[in-house]
Amino acid sequence: MRKRTTSRSRLLQKTTLKGGGILKIIPLGGLEEVGRNMTLLEYENQILIVDMGLQFPDENTPGIDFIIPNIEYLTTHPEKKILGVFITHAHYDHIGAIPYLIDKLNYPPLYATPLAKAIILKRQEDFSHLKKLHIENLQVNSKKFYELGPFRIKTFHLNHNIPETIGLAINSPVGRIFYATDYKFDFQPLVDRPANLSYIANLANGGIDLLLSDSTYADTPGHSLSEKVIMDNLEKIFATAKSRIFLATFASLISRLQQAIWLSEKYNRKVAIEGRTMRTNFKIAQKLGYIKVNKDTLINVKDARRLPPRRVTILCTGAQGEPEAVLMKLVNREHKYLRIEKGDTIIFSSSTVPGNELAVQNLKDNLAKQGAEVYHYKMLDIHASGHGYQEDLKLMINLVHPRFFMPIHGYYSLLKAHAQIAESMGIAPSHIVVASNGQIVELTRDNIRLTQKFVPTNYIMVDGLGVGDVGEVVLRDRQTLSKDGIFIIIALVDKKTGLLHNEAEIISRGFVYMKESKDLIQKTKKMTQEIVARCTKRQSFNDAYIRNTLRDEIGMFLFQQTKRRPMVLPVVIEI
Amino acid sequence: MRKRTTSRSRLLQKTTLKGGGILKIIPLGGLEEVGRNMTLLEYENQILIVDMGLQFPDENTPGIDFIIPNIEYLTTHPEKKILGVFITHAHYDHIGAIPYLIDKLNYPPLYATPLAKAIILKRQEDFSHLKKLHIENLQVNSKKFYELGPFRIKTFHLNHNIPETIGLAINSPVGRIFYATDYKFDFQPLVDRPANLSYIANLANGGIDLLLSDSTYADTPGHSLSEKVIMDNLEKIFATAKSRIFLATFASLISRLQQAIWLSEKYNRKVAIEGRTMRTNFKIAQKLGYIKVNKDTLINVKDARRLPPRRVTILCTGAQGEPEAVLMKLVNREHKYLRIEKGDTIIFSSSTVPGNELAVQNLKDNLAKQGAEVYHYKMLDIHASGHGYQEDLKLMINLVHPRFFMPIHGYYSLLKAHAQIAESMGIAPSHIVVASNGQIVELTRDNIRLTQKFVPTNYIMVDGLGVGDVGEVVLRDRQTLSKDGIFIIIALVDKKTGLLHNEAEIISRGFVYMKESKDLIQKTKKMTQEIVARCTKRQSFNDAYIRNTLRDEIGMFLFQQTKRRPMVLPVVIEI
Repeated sequence: MRKRTTSRSRLLQKTTLKGGGILKIIPLGGLEEVGRNMTLLEYENQILIVDMGLQFPDENTPGIDFIIPNIEYLTTHPEKKILGVFITHAHYDHIGAIPYLIDKLNYPPLYATPLAKAIILKRQEDFSHLKKLHIENLQVNSKKFYELGPFRIKTFHLNHNIPETIGLAINSPVGRIFYATDYKFDFQPLVDRPANLSYIANLANGGIDLLLSDSTYADTPGHSLSEKVIMDNLEKIFATAKSRIFLATFASLISRLQQAIWLSEKYNRKVAIEGRTMRTNFKIAQKLGYIKVNKDTLINVKDARRLPPRRVTILCTGAQGEPEAVLMKLVNREHKYLRIEKGDTIIFSSSTVPGNELAVQNLKDNLAKQGAEVYHYKMLDIHASGHGYQEDLKLMINLVHPRFFMPIHGYYSLLKAHAQIAESMGIAPSHIVVASNGQIVELTRDNIRLTQKFVPTNYIMVDGLGVGDVGEVVLRDRQTLSKDGIFIIIALVDKKTGLLHNEAEIISRGFVYMKESKDLIQKTKKMTQEIVARCTKRQSFNDAYIRNTLRDEIGMFLFQQTKRRPMVLPVVIEI
Repeated sequence: MRKRTTSRSRLLQKTTLKGGGILKIIPLGGLEEVGRNMTLLEYENQILIVDMGLQFPDENTPGIDFIIPNIEYLTTHPEKKILGVFITHAHYDHIGAIPYLIDKLNYPPLYATPLAKAIILKRQEDFSHLKKLHIENLQVNSKKFYELGPFRIKTFHLNHNIPETIGLAINSPVGRIFYATDYKFDFQPLVDRPANLSYIANLANGGIDLLLSDSTYADTPGHSLSEKVIMDNLEKIFATAKSRIFLATFASLISRLQQAIWLSEKYNRKVAIEGRTMRTNFKIAQKLGYIKVNKDTLINVKDARRLPPRRVTILCTGAQGEPEAVLMKLVNREHKYLRIEKGDTIIFSSSTVPGNELAVQNLKDNLAKQGAEVYHYKMLDIHASGHGYQEDLKLMINLVHPRFFMPIHGYYSLLKAHAQIAESMGIAPSHIVVASNGQIVELTRDNIRLTQKFVPTNYIMVDGLGVGDVGEVVLRDRQTLSKDGIFIIIALVDKKTGLLHNEAEIISRGFVYMKESKDLIQKTKKMTQEIVARCTKRQSFNDAYIRNTLRDEIGMFLFQQTKRRPMVLPVVIEI
C-alpha cells in the first residue's frame, strides 16, 4: 500500500465529528469461533448492535442444539440504550439468535434488507410466544442514511454467498468506521451484482478511520473463486450426467439454487426441491426476484418418479451429513418417495463445515456403495466460499485506506493472519487490534486501544427448551460419560447392623457389557459389602463418607482391572 | 493408456504359473476407512498376510483407544496355514495390530525391512507378556526372492513419508500380482532415493496380471508434492525466524525430522527433541543411517533454556492436537521446562487427520494468543502427503500395465474414484473390482470376480486392557449418554404396602444441572410415587413392569418439559 497522503486535518473535515470521547467496540462473539456474530458499538451509553447470530455445536458441546451470544452486559446495564440492530445478511450465524434475545432486549428496532427481513420473519413463526417483529427495510448503495443517536449509517453492497449482503459505513463522533463482515469480491457473481468498488471508494473518500473486516479465510492465499467458475464446472456435470442429478448444498445458498435451476432448464430437466428450509428459502428468494424459474420447471418429488431419470434434478439438503436431512434419509432408505439408484449423480456443492468431515465421508461412501457417482469440491471446483481470501482482503484495505484496523470473524489465529496482512499493507502495528470475545476496544480520535476489560461471553447453550441451563458441569459430565460410561452402585444399608441389606445393585452403561462381565460385577459387589461394613464400623452411618469411599476404591479397582475410568456413582440409602 | 500390445500367450509365459485354481484376496480392513490395513492372499488354504495395522478411533467410537482387524476368519479355520506376514512399512496403520494379533495367530514368520523391524521390536517391549518376535530382514530391489508355499515374492522400493516403504511383486499360480500400498512418486525425496521406475517396469516385464494400489488420495487431481518443495518452504521460515522454532509433525515422519536437523544446522540452531515416540523413532532412524546429525547439534531440552532463543529448534509431537502431546502441554503451561513465548515460531508440518480439525484449530488459536507465530499447511506448502494423487496413480498403472485392477486403502468413495482412473486408463470395467472389507475377491488365470461371500470384519476395539469387549451396545450407550446424559430413579418399594418407601432418589448427570432444576426433580419424584402405587395396585410386585412404566412415562415427561432425551434408568428394589 502506498503511504497515506491524506492529512489528518483533511480527514477530520470529512468526518461528522460532533465531539471527542471514546467509542467502545465490544464483540460479544465471532472472534474465537466461526459463528455467534454480534458486535456492540457503544458511545456514551448508546449502543448500536451489528448482527445477532448463533453458533452450531461441536465435539466440545455434545448434545447441544446451538450456542447464542451472552447478552449479560446489556441486560445488567439498564442505563444503556440500545439504538437498533443492523443485520448484515440472512445467514443464521448473523440472524439466528434473534428469537432468543430480542425479547430480553425489549424489542429494539431492527434494520435489514428485504431478503434478510423475510427470512427472519419466517423463522419467527416457529416462536409463537414472541411479539411480532418490526423490521425496517434497509436501502443499499443509496443516498439514504440512518441516524441513530450519535451514529449516522449508510450501507454498501458486498458479495457473499447470499444476495443482499451489506457492509456498514458508520459515522461516529470519533471517526468513520467501515464494518465489512462476511464478504468476498466476485466480479462475475450469479444472481447478484458485483460489489461496486467505485461506490465503496467514494464512500471511504480517501481514507476511513477504522476498518473491521472478515477474517474467515485470512490464511488462504490468492483470490476467492467466482461463482462463474462454479457454474462452468457444474455445467460439465449436467452436460454428461445420464440419470438423475441430486444437487445438495446449504439451504441458504440461493445463487447455487438458481444455478441448478438454470442448468436444469438448459439440459431439459425438471426440478424437485427437497428439504424444509431449502424450500422455504427458495420461495422467499423467488418472491423477491432472486430466483427466476420457468413456470413448468418445478415439480413435486412424487412426480419425479414418473419422469425418465435423465430429465430430473433434485435440489436437496444434507451436504453436511446431517442425520435428519434429505441425503441421509436417502442412503438410509428412509425417504418417503426416493431411493438412490445406480447411475444417479450426487453433487456436494458445498464445503464441509469443520467437525462434519467424518459424517460427510461416511455419507459419500454409502452413496457410492449404492451405485451413485459422487462429486465434491475436492475433485472439482463446484463450491466457492463466500469469504474473501488474502487478496480480497488486501483489495478491501487498499480500497478504503483505514487508519486503524480490527480483524473480525474467525478463529483467533485467522484474526492474527489478517492483522499480518494489514501490517504488510502498511498499517502500523500500533494501529491494529486483535481482540478476543468480550474484550473492550476503545477508539478515540487519535488512538485505538485494546483494553484489558472484558464483558461476559461464556457460552449460552440452547438445548431443547432450555436456554442457558446447560453449563460447564453438565457438558463435562456428558464428555466423561461418552468416554468410559457410568458405573452405578446402589447400596442399601441396614440401620441396625450397619451392614449391606442384600447384595449391592450394580448398573453399568457404556463401560463394559454387563452380561459378559459377570466376574467383574461380582467382585465389585463383594467390595461394596466390605467397604460398607468397614465404614459403618469406624463411625456411625455417614452416607457421604460411604459414598466417597466407594467411589474412590471401586473407581481404582475398575481402573486396575480395565484401564478405563467410568463415572462411578454410588447411591447409599439407609433403611 | 495405449492399448495393451502384449498378447495373452506372452504374458502367460512370463508368469510362473504352476497350476490353475483360485486365489482369494481377502481384505480384513483398509477398504472402508483409513487404517486397519491387513490383507490376506489365500491359495489352497495357504495364506500370505500383508500388513497388520490399527485404526485410530473417531467420533463414532468414543472412548476407544484403537481398532484392530478382526481375525475370526483365521482363528476359526485351523486347517488354513499362515505362511507369513509381509510388512510394507513402519506406520502404525500397517504394523500397529501386531502385538494384539500375533500370539493369537501362533507367531507366524514376519518379514520387514530393518527400519520397520526396529520400530516393531521397540513397540513390542511395551507388551512384556508376549514372546520375542523373530522378524526376517527384507532385501529390497535385489535379486533375492522369498518363496512361501505357492507364492514367490520380490520387493521393490516406493516413496512414502517414511523410508524403506516397499511394494510387493508376488508370483502366484494364477498370475503375477503387484501390491502397492501407501506410496507416491517423489523424484526429489529427502532422506530417501526415488522409486526406481525402470526397476519396477522391468519387474512388471511388460504387464502384470493384477495391481492392488493405494487409493488414499485418489480424489485429488495432479501430482503429489515433492519433499524438496517442502524443504524449500521450511527454509523460508528458518531463514527469517527471530526466536525459537517449534516444528511439530508426525513422530514417524523421519524425513521431516532430518529436514529440521539440516535447516537447524544451516541456520546455526541447536535441536531438542520432545515427545517419547518421536525420540524413539529418531534414535532408531539415526542408528540405521536415515537421520544424519552433527555431533553437537542435539541438546537436552533443559539446556535449550540457556541458549539465545534464535539458536534453538524444538522438534516435537502434538500437531494433531492430541491432549497428551508436547504442543498441548505447552499451551496449557504444563510442560516441565518450556513455555510459549512471544515471538516463537510454531510450524505445523503435517496434515490434519480427519476428525482432529477442531482440536488443531483450538491449539493454533491458543498458541497465537500466547504470542506465537503459527504456520500450517494451508498457508504454505510445509507438508506433503505420503500418498500419490491422481497423476501418481496413473503413472503406476502405466508403468506396470495390469490386466486386472483392485483399488485398496481408503474410504469406499476413494476406491471408486481410483477405479474410475483405472477405467480412464483403458482397463475394462469387468477387469476392475471395488471390494468392501471382508469381501472375498477371486482371481483365476482368466478372470477376477467380486464374490458375495464375506468374512467377518466388524470392529475389534481396544479400550484400556479390554480387546474386543466393547461392542455396539456399549458404544451406543456412550453416544446416548454424551447427547443428553442420564437420569436415574431409585425406587424402594415396600413389600407390604406396595408403596414407595420414602421418596424416590433421583440422580442426573449430563442432563440438567440438578441444583437448578429442583422443581423438575420434585415433579418426577411425585410421578414415581404415583406410578409405583398404580403398578402395584394392578398386579403383585413386578419390578420389570414398574421399571418399564417408569422409563416410558418419566422419559416422556422429561422430553415434554425439556425437549431432551436422557437415558432414563429406573432401579426398583423391593424391601
